[in-house]
Parts: sequence; structure tokens; C-alpha cells
Amino acid sequence: MIPKVAMIGGGSWATAIIKMLSDNFTAKEIYWWMRNQESITHLQKYKHNPNYLSSVEIRIPEDNISNNISDIIEKAEYIILNVPAAFLKETLDGVSPEQLKGKKIISAIKGIVPDENLIIGEFLNQKYNVPYEDIVVISGPCHAEEVALEKLSYLTIASTNLELAAIFARLLATRYIKTNISDDIFGTEYAAVLKNIYAVASGICHGVGYGDNFQAVLISNAIREIKRFVDAVHPISRDIKESAYLGDLLVTAYSQFSRNRTFGNMIGKGYTVKSAQLEMNMVAEGYYAVNSMHHVNKKYKVDMPISRAVYAILYEKHSPHIEMRLLTEQLN
Amino acid sequence: MIPKVAMIGGGSWATAIIKMLSDNFTAKEIYWWMRNQESITHLQKYKHNPNYLSSVEIRIPEDNISNNISDIIEKAEYIILNVPAAFLKETLDGVSPEQLKGKKIISAIKGIVPDENLIIGEFLNQKYNVPYEDIVVISGPCHAEEVALEKLSYLTIASTNLELAAIFARLLATRYIKTNISDDIFGTEYAAVLKNIYAVASGICHGVGYGDNFQAVLISNAIREIKRFVDAVHPISRDIKESAYLGDLLVTAYSQFSRNRTFGNMIGKGYTVKSAQLEMNMVAEGYYAVNSMHHVNKKYKVDMPISRAVYAILYEKHSPHIEMRLLTEQLN
Repeated sequence: MIPKVAMIGGGSWATAIIKMLSDNFTAKEIYWWMRNQESITHLQKYKHNPNYLSSVEIRIPEDNISNNISDIIEKAEYIILNVPAAFLKETLDGVSPEQLKGKKIISAIKGIVPDENLIIGEFLNQKYNVPYEDIVVISGPCHAEEVALEKLSYLTIASTNLELAAIFARLLATRYIKTNISDDIFGTEYAAVLKNIYAVASGICHGVGYGDNFQAVLISNAIREIKRFVDAVHPISRDIKESAYLGDLLVTAYSQFSRNRTFGNMIGKGYTVKSAQLEMNMVAEGYYAVNSMHHVNKKYKVDMPISRAVYAILYEKHSPHIEMRLLTEQLN
Repeated sequence: MIPKVAMIGGGSWATAIIKMLSDNFTAKEIYWWMRNQESITHLQKYKHNPNYLSSVEIRIPEDNISNNISDIIEKAEYIILNVPAAFLKETLDGVSPEQLKGKKIISAIKGIVPDENLIIGEFLNQKYNVPYEDIVVISGPCHAEEVALEKLSYLTIASTNLELAAIFARLLATRYIKTNISDDIFGTEYAAVLKNIYAVASGICHGVGYGDNFQAVLISNAIREIKRFVDAVHPISRDIKESAYLGDLLVTAYSQFSRNRTFGNMIGKGYTVKSAQLEMNMVAEGYYAVNSMHHVNKKYKVDMPISRAVYAILYEKHSPHIEMRLLTEQLN
């Protein structure tokens, strides 16, 4: 039986994972759903995604690429979700729990479903009745751009079903992709969400004028904040210094190319949220994440001074200068 | 009683600490020893260190700056050692244990004394009979250049004598310097030494062609390697994610300006050790540190694959490409 894998989403991370699946030696059928018909036509004709990682050659049969999500889902047994968290509900709008029954659902999304304030695993479980043993989470540290360049990267494949994690990991591994497996889907998902908030914080601090010395203090406090939160939400034994947690934070917070960091930097320099979004022509995931986390943390009441400062700046219009100065008193 | 503080060493970190001591509001007398008489004359005449952080104005009476180390030590009760570890024995050559008796000795050195393979605290205790309760260690994360710019930085002041750590911390704190205290002088010193090795590793990986994704994996493995080692050497309860450990690693390994990283980068690009040293006109501390650690770890036998790879490249002339590829198999 040749495994059949469907990708839902057409961005750069989706394109990077398509590349991994194609370069991996296990024979498989790959299906790809994306919304935009123009992109599909371009892909079918020129074998390159016109908008994202357009250097990557796509070796998928034309007929396997479609904007009919039900068709694509029907054909595959592994469904990889890879649209922004903010669009997940809309994307799955015409899909029923029945259609996902018996399928393995892999989340490559790093975010919280707005309004629901659920991480992707919880959302799939609660709204689509997907059992946890059929859910897998893919996490970095991994910039899609470096996958396109075939730079060595390590992925963590998490599932409460470690056997499934191992099976899926074997579909992704290539010469330039190494995989770890983990049973911590909650910790992995929340860490991936939170890191975007700290990348925004890191950008704000840079924009306000703090230097590398403070940046190092901020990030070493941020990983402790992540640990406090995930330990409160899902108290299992985990080493937060592993690549899926600390590594993912580092690659995001220290990257000059991170959208979240760039967004934070503009806020720190005095742009309003609206003008920063207009200027960037996209929305940083950390902007939504900090709002969702603010609501989620009402339940857990974890001490999260960095996250709270970012929330105050972005949603309560507090001055970045003043809020960050107050924050410096709470770090060590 | 006005505290009397002596600085032994004339480099940029020494100059940065002189600036902190001067900007701190506690009245104190500051004495400064440096070897080079030309620098002293320049300092006395122009109030700026000619070679390091030369933008910093030095407000110390002319007579308090001298190249007579015995004189300077005699006048002060707090002696800050701030020469490269490789030159510490030579610097203290004419100084007897008697002359240090009853003084508080503060190490701002990050290194291991060559041949002895002792960290500074051990060296002072074993060779100069300085009791541990009189020894203090200053650690970052702190680039001296950012102190000159008055960028907010956090220092950790460690001593088995926490009261002394607190007293000394109060002499350093300024508007732009916050201080933490710690009782972990062994962990703090070793972490400060090891981070230079990982900055070299980071540079080698960059030189060989690895990207940011791998860099994040390397550093998240490096902090685990630091934890394994310091827990073996001095098993106390400590959070390796604190700024003195993780923060210090981050500011060094992620800095484009780190000498250790630059040195590693040249090695990764194929320079020999000699030609890299000639080109840089200075020696990266990590080069000595990895040799000392290689010897120290013969006793503890801690699993340190990154440190071992750097040793093999620098001292056994292994190919950086091959050694790093082998290393990638041992990380996760």
C-alpha cells in the first residue's frame, strides 16, 4: 500500500513540506489543495509555486493539485493542515467530521484558532471528533526558506501515538531533514505559538533601542515563561531545552527575517498596529497569538510578564517604551 | 569607610567595568593597573583608554592609574582580575599570597588557567590561598561595547558568600546595569568558559555552510551540554535557563561580533588555526578553552559531542566538514 498524503494550504511552509515529501525515498502519492486557482494553473504548467519558495521544483502530477478540498481529502489517508490558524475554520467550512473519519491529521499550523482559543489538536478533537491518537504535530526549528536551500534542519514530529509519529517521520526525512519524535503534542503546539509572541517582543525591544545584551536576557526569560505555561497546561516530564521548544524559539526570535520580529520592530519604533500591518502587507502570527494566549491564560493564571507586556502594547495601546521599561524590572 | 576597588587589566571588559563603577552612585576610590605605560600616559592625559572602548570618559585621578601591580593591590580591598586567563599567571607573577590576604578577589575573567586547568576561583583558592568566601565571579550576558553605549545589561554576581556578592553588586549597579546574585561560582565560571567553545562551534558551522535552522539545534544542544557538565562538576540545584548560563551563551553564540564566532567561521571556511589567528591579530578564548576542557573532562567524562568536535577540528586537524557532519548525527 503506497501512502497517500494530502497538503491543505499553499504557503511557503506547505511548499517546503511538499519538497520534503517529494525528496523522501518512500514511494507515496501526494495531493495538494490550495485556494487560488491561478496559483494552481501556474503550478500545473510551470512546476513551481508562483508565490512561495518559487525556486522549488514541484514534481506532482497535475491532476493531484486542486482547489476542491473534499476531493483532495477523500483521496488521501494523511491530511496535512497548513493554512494560517486564522483561516482554518473557513478552510474546513465545507468539510464534515465524517470526511475526516479514520484519517491521520497532521498539523503544520503554528497558532490558536481564533474565537475558539484552542490549539489545533484540541480543535480537531473537539470540533471534528478526530481522536488524539490520529493527530500529529510538526514543529521546527525550521525556516521554510532554508528547506528550499536544502540546509540541514531538524523537525519534531509529535503525537500521543508514538508509532504514528514514527511512521509519519519516515515520510519526511531526507538528506537535509532529520526528525525527532515526541509524545508531547500540547507542549509542542503551545511552544510553537508562544515563540511568535516572544519574537514580537524581541522586535519591540530592538525597535525601542535595547541591544543584544538585553535580547539574551529577554530570550532566557522567555523560555522560562514557556516552560511555566506548558507545565501548567500539560504537566508531563519534558526538557524545554530540546530543539522543538528552545530551538524553535531561537530560530524565530533571532531571525532578522521573522515576520513577527519585523512587526514588533515597527511597533517599537512607533508604528501603530494598523500601519505596521499595512506596511508589511501581512499579519504577524504573534499578533493573534498574544490575544488568544491572553484569554487562554485566564484559566491557568501563569505568570507571563513578557506575553502580558506584548498584549498591553498591541491591544491596550500602552507605550512600548514604558511597557518594556516596566518589563525590565520583572526579568532577571 | 569608602570602599577601595582595584581593576587589574586594561582591555574592553575592564574599561566597561570601570565605567560601571564610576557611574554607580556609591562613593568609592578606584585604582587601575594596566601593563602598558603608553596607555597609562594616554589615559592620564586624555581621560580615555586609547585601545578599548575609547569613547568612554575615564574619571579616575591620575595617580590611581599605574603599572605597579603590588602598589595597586596594596591600596584596595576589592581586587578585580580582568586579564585574559592565558596571562593571569604571568600578571600575578610578582604577587604573593600574603599580598592578597584579607582582600576580596573578584574574577571578571572567563577562562581556564592554562597548564593548571583550573577555573579562576579554584586557581585563586589553590595557588593563592584565597578562601572561597572572599571570591566573587562576575558574569554576563554582557558585551562590553554595549556597556559603553549604556544599553541595559544584566550581570550575575556569584559567590559562595552571598552577602559579599550583594555588597559587590551594589557597587556595580547603575541606570543601565541590573545585577542578580548567585551562589554558584563553579557553574557560572564553567558556563562562561564553555560558551566560548560553542561560539567557535557556531562559527565553524556557519563557515561550513549550515544555516539558522541548524544553528538553533546546535545551541539548544549546547545548553544541554553545559548543563550536563556543570551538574557533574558541581551538582547543586540550578536553572541553566537563567541569564548567567543560557543568556551568556546566546549573546556570545548569536553575536556577529564575537571573536570566537569569527574565529570559528574562518576555520569552517578552511583557514588553518595559525592563519586565522594571524588574520584576526588576536586569539579567540574558545581556542584555549576547548583544550583545557578536553583535559578537565578526562576526569568527569561527561558526554560533550560539540566540545569534542571543536577539539578534534582545532587540535587534531580533523576536517571541519566531516567533523560537523558526524556531529549532526549526535544532536537532536
